[in-house]
Amino acid sequence: MEKIKFGCDYLEGAHPRILQRLIETNYEQHEGYSEDAHCDAARQYILQRCKKEDAQVHFLVGGTQTNMTVIAAVLRPHQGVISAHTGHVNVHETGAIEAQGHKVLALPSPDGKLTGDQVRECVWGHRKDENFEHMVQPGMVYVSNPTENGTMYTKAELQDLRAACDECGIPLYLDGARMGYALCAPDNDLWMEDYARLCDLFYIGGTKCGMLMGEALVICNPALQKDFRYILKQKGGMLAKGRLLGVQFEEMFKDGLYEEACGHGIQMALKLKQGFADKGYDFLFDSGSNQQFPILTEEKRAELAEKYDFAFWERVDENRVGVRFCTSWATKESAVDALLADL
Amino acid sequence: MEKIKFGCDYLEGAHPRILQRLIETNYEQHEGYSEDAHCDAARQYILQRCKKEDAQVHFLVGGTQTNMTVIAAVLRPHQGVISAHTGHVNVHETGAIEAQGHKVLALPSPDGKLTGDQVRECVWGHRKDENFEHMVQPGMVYVSNPTENGTMYTKAELQDLRAACDECGIPLYLDGARMGYALCAPDNDLWMEDYARLCDLFYIGGTKCGMLMGEALVICNPALQKDFRYILKQKGGMLAKGRLLGVQFEEMFKDGLYEEACGHGIQMALKLKQGFADKGYDFLFDSGSNQQFPILTEEKRAELAEKYDFAFWERVDENRVGVRFCTSWATKESAVDALLADL
Amino acid sequence: MEKIKFGCDYLEGAHPRILQRLIETNYEQHEGYSEDAHCDAARQYILQRCKKEDAQVHFLVGGTQTNMTVIAAVLRPHQGVISAHTGHVNVHETGAIEAQGHKVLALPSPDGKLTGDQVRECVWGHRKDENFEHMVQPGMVYVSNPTENGTMYTKAELQDLRAACDECGIPLYLDGARMGYALCAPDNDLWMEDYARLCDLFYIGGTKCGMLMGEALVICNPALQKDFRYILKQKGGMLAKGRLLGVQFEEMFKDGLYEEACGHGIQMALKLKQGFADKGYDFLFDSGSNQQFPILTEEKRAELAEKYDFAFWERVDENRVGVRFCTSWATKESAVDALLADL
Amino acid sequence: MEKIKFGCDYLEGAHPRILQRLIETNYEQHEGYSEDAHCDAARQYILQRCKKEDAQVHFLVGGTQTNMTVIAAVLRPHQGVISAHTGHVNVHETGAIEAQGHKVLALPSPDGKLTGDQVRECVWGHRKDENFEHMVQPGMVYVSNPTENGTMYTKAELQDLRAACDECGIPLYLDGARMGYALCAPDNDLWMEDYARLCDLFYIGGTKCGMLMGEALVICNPALQKDFRYILKQKGGMLAKGRLLGVQFEEMFKDGLYEEACGHGIQMALKLKQGFADKGYDFLFDSGSNQQFPILTEEKRAELAEKYDFAFWERVDENRVGVRFCTSWATKESAVDALLADL
Repeated sequence: MEKIKFGCDYLEGAHPRILQRLIETNYEQHEGYSEDAHCDAARQYILQRCKKEDAQVHFLVGGTQTNMTVIAAVLRPHQGVISAHTGHVNVHETGAIEAQGHKVLALPSPDGKLTGDQVRECVWGHRKDENFEHMVQPGMVYVSNPTENGTMYTKAELQDLRAACDECGIPLYLDGARMGYALCAPDNDLWMEDYARLCDLFYIGGTKCGMLMGEALVICNPALQKDFRYILKQKGGMLAKGRLLGVQFEEMFKDGLYEEACGHGIQMALKLKQGFADKGYDFLFDSGSNQQFPILTEEKRAELAEKYDFAFWERVDENRVGVRFCTSWATKESAVDALLADL
Repeated sequence: MEKIKFGCDYLEGAHPRILQRLIETNYEQHEGYSEDAHCDAARQYILQRCKKEDAQVHFLVGGTQTNMTVIAAVLRPHQGVISAHTGHVNVHETGAIEAQGHKVLALPSPDGKLTGDQVRECVWGHRKDENFEHMVQPGMVYVSNPTENGTMYTKAELQDLRAACDECGIPLYLDGARMGYALCAPDNDLWMEDYARLCDLFYIGGTKCGMLMGEALVICNPALQKDFRYILKQKGGMLAKGRLLGVQFEEMFKDGLYEEACGHGIQMALKLKQGFADKGYDFLFDSGSNQQFPILTEEKRAELAEKYDFAFWERVDENRVGVRFCTSWATKESAVDALLADL
Repeated sequence: MEKIKFGCDYLEGAHPRILQRLIETNYEQHEGYSEDAHCDAARQYILQRCKKEDAQVHFLVGGTQTNMTVIAAVLRPHQGVISAHTGHVNVHETGAIEAQGHKVLALPSPDGKLTGDQVRECVWGHRKDENFEHMVQPGMVYVSNPTENGTMYTKAELQDLRAACDECGIPLYLDGARMGYALCAPDNDLWMEDYARLCDLFYIGGTKCGMLMGEALVICNPALQKDFRYILKQKGGMLAKGRLLGVQFEEMFKDGLYEEACGHGIQMALKLKQGFADKGYDFLFDSGSNQQFPILTEEKRAELAEKYDFAFWERVDENRVGVRFCTSWATKESAVDALLADL
Repeated sequence: MEKIKFGCDYLEGAHPRILQRLIETNYEQHEGYSEDAHCDAARQYILQRCKKEDAQVHFLVGGTQTNMTVIAAVLRPHQGVISAHTGHVNVHETGAIEAQGHKVLALPSPDGKLTGDQVRECVWGHRKDENFEHMVQPGMVYVSNPTENGTMYTKAELQDLRAACDECGIPLYLDGARMGYALCAPDNDLWMEDYARLCDLFYIGGTKCGMLMGEALVICNPALQKDFRYILKQKGGMLAKGRLLGVQFEEMFKDGLYEEACGHGIQMALKLKQGFADKGYDFLFDSGSNQQFPILTEEKRAELAEKYDFAFWERVDENRVGVRFCTSWATKESAVDALLADL
């Protein structure tokens, strides 16, 4: 019997409305490279959400591609990007950032978040070091929301990062691979217009939030917009049939499908979290997002692993491990119920 | 009124059978990163065609991405890739190859093809130059079939390139972005097993041949297979929902859909070609592929441009220009008929 | 018997005054990385020559290093550098520019020089191409004076290049590896203040002009000066004992040693040129610089090669080849006399 | 009055015998690019020391340049280099390694040394991680001896690193910028033939050990030798007047000048160390090398700083800092005596 999978949030295809729109638009003839009417419409919907008319919206296929393209576009050769040690760009992109020539300046973080003071200390520490020219210059800040650990920034925290970046004169870039889930989390107080106001660049994740694939990069800071499409093309991220990304994001943002899809994922995650808590399980991180990190005994882990697929995260002690369960727009409630029953 | 478009071969979405399969498989839960059953099935179909069991098949999203990833994986830092001056890697990838650190060693070619002797001369010329260490070392050969000019290699020509590469000890890489059309062209004598036998690496184009997106890279030479997936990830080419590529290529190759789709494109191209020829038009190149390059007077070009979309290619003389008409799996015969009637 | 060498202009060590100063300053204790008093003094001498107080002067060890560091510092990722096809960056640096991620946009040139109109055509042609984002954007211009062919720019020609760069909004960089010889050539009308006024960046060659090693880069355009020392360090070009470069350039420019040394090289070159001309030899290029390119029969070439070392340049016809004789600050007049006697 | 400088070990020019030889050989005519008789002689002396006839010796100008060139030559794109967190490649090369496209995999180290077990854990941990393809693959090990902290490997420790590298199948590279001082340290049990036997590549530092500039890279592993000179040229490290490096290393190794020069530096360092210890000072690290790291009160530091130049290293507590005093081949005993008197 096939296991029920909670291993990640890209296990299924796409929300059925997405597929339906691809079929409906299939024989339309469109210019390539995201210069079509659907991309334009999607851009408009996104800009309306952002309440930032001078922003640019670009569509890319995947997250690593987006991160490496953005960072390559923003930094000069001697600069690096500040990231939490657990940041995706630091640990899970096979050195894509370094392959662009840039060091990831990794800072410690117990929960996956960076603070404004960490940024200040890193940048000002660099500038007053007498050997500063012999060291990589901090050139931008990378954060993700939700983080790799499921934690989420509050508006106050993101404002503090913005303030720190302003003080230091470096841009703030936010990876929103799972932004849809953050938008639907009960405690969330960061909306798309906040991201657009507080970040120099950020991307709205599609792949993990109900689309076949696709990420929408918003370049809020006009000073960083020039010639971005050249770099997009050079890094292999300019999709020939760009309309595919346009159609999907258009559908996602024309009437709230993005939140509808992700909202379901969050409901499933919170039900799962509550179920574990009710049974007395502890968690690695206090996540309000679609990734939950309960701590299991080795015995329980082995038992659950016979019927469910989920990820090892880190060892807690000799007998216990932290694991990760992901939900998504596609998670069946029956799957969560079955899991909780097996606890 | 909207123009009828012959501007490129990625104007529409995908063959309806492709979309149908995406819907049927939508709720299946699959591992990410092309480690799913559909990718495996697609690999098997492709390997059977290739009659090469020790080949590796990898799925990528687009052509520039595939070219840059392959070249980065194959070359050492001091090596460059030999290409026709008109090669896609030389002129239409915004320097993606150079961004990987490698020079494109561009050789002249009137028709877009390279010859074995050009390769021999380039490599042996380099080796006997007394300043060889001060120059980029030719490290591999890039060709495309059909070429950017719609011309196609014969088996004898590709065998000669293979022989040249063997003599020089460098690998041969073939870009098959439009391979499907070559396979269906009347004069073709190169089949997939020939590509697999004669090339060290080649890719089978999906984007321009009826799929939403996707290219299937075949690494025939085992010496070049090691750790390729790391590099695929690093360059942003490892699709999270790899199953999308698997499902599409599986459908394309399980019963001949690839040739069915591209065969239509070739029929339309040849009808268009014949129509131009019947009216006495000359052509820039003698193309048997899905790209046709008739020469028009400026007057005719302007007249046709009111109803049809097609690409400027190059100026022939003061009054005449060469243009490009592309057909594809999706071209309507009525569109071709209308065009020919307007000649 | 050892051959007399005319193979290049870096056959000997350094002008004896240079060595003398190294000895005199040997036990002085100086900060590293060119932050010492000798570097400062050398910078002042150079800036005085340039009549440009807001220029920056940096010291590097060699020419390839200087070229790759400058180009890496100036260009954004999607940009390339315009160069004559024969330019050093295009053919004799083992792809150092591409290794920085940038394409060399090579333009044809019979004599090694670029014209303003070539630059205009390249840049404006790019900008109006409908696929411009799919092609490398011309981002700067590289020229050398004297060129690889010994030819030299006139002031009018360099002014035209400057005007073209201004019209296009891209910087002009001049490689002066052999600038000392240009300064001493009879027909020269370009002085250091002209370079400083007409170029955004240029370097004054030391290695080929009487120093042990070293090139002095002048960044005239303040917009290109920011953080250059970081990049210098990153590319391996920041010499620990920077004082060595400072002492040498200080000696070269404090009282005209640079011109004294190179002036001798030019006298020897012109004597050699006249000698060949008197015997009826033709030349590949009309060089007024320290490189001379007579055309020899194969027979004569073989005969001379028994006693003299010189470089093959290019085949002229079945029986004749163009060769290169280099003179320098160290060429003995007796060597030139012996050669001419053997003609 | 000028301060007495202990700030680094490249404060002065070169050992007088080095300068003398440059003068004696100045007018010899030599091929460029280290293909001359002096480089050949120097190579022979070094190979004799190494007792390894199939090794290759290359001459470079500086340490950062050597490190980045070696690492670029050895690694494939998806690989990184393991280093102590304090390693020069990780902290003091302005991202030169990342600029080559490679991540530095930094491991913690209290004393600047790596252990075999750290290497084993890093490599085997990577290989058994289920997401290994999403992470940088450890591809080589970088160590320096003496380390940045003045500590030195014992033969047993280096043998263990060698064993670990053999088990993991990755090369070991040793940065010997200050190797001369290690060779002269009282407790040293590692000789050049040990380095040659235990490392795949290592370099013998010249810049900090009595030469004007220059590092001699020994590539012991024949599998890593192919085409190295191409890469040397591409990275800007091939000195035109390579004879300068040849003459210096020839002089250093023909009769023991290297050890004579560095032996003096060690004597001065140990005298300084003993002097501090006698006065009851503690040290940050137990260094037997030419770098000494006493711990001073802020008051003492300020007092000494009026007459002496030395480097801040790290804060120990609110009132005390660790500092660095460097000696070298050129340190005057009177300077050490003066310093000790002022304690």
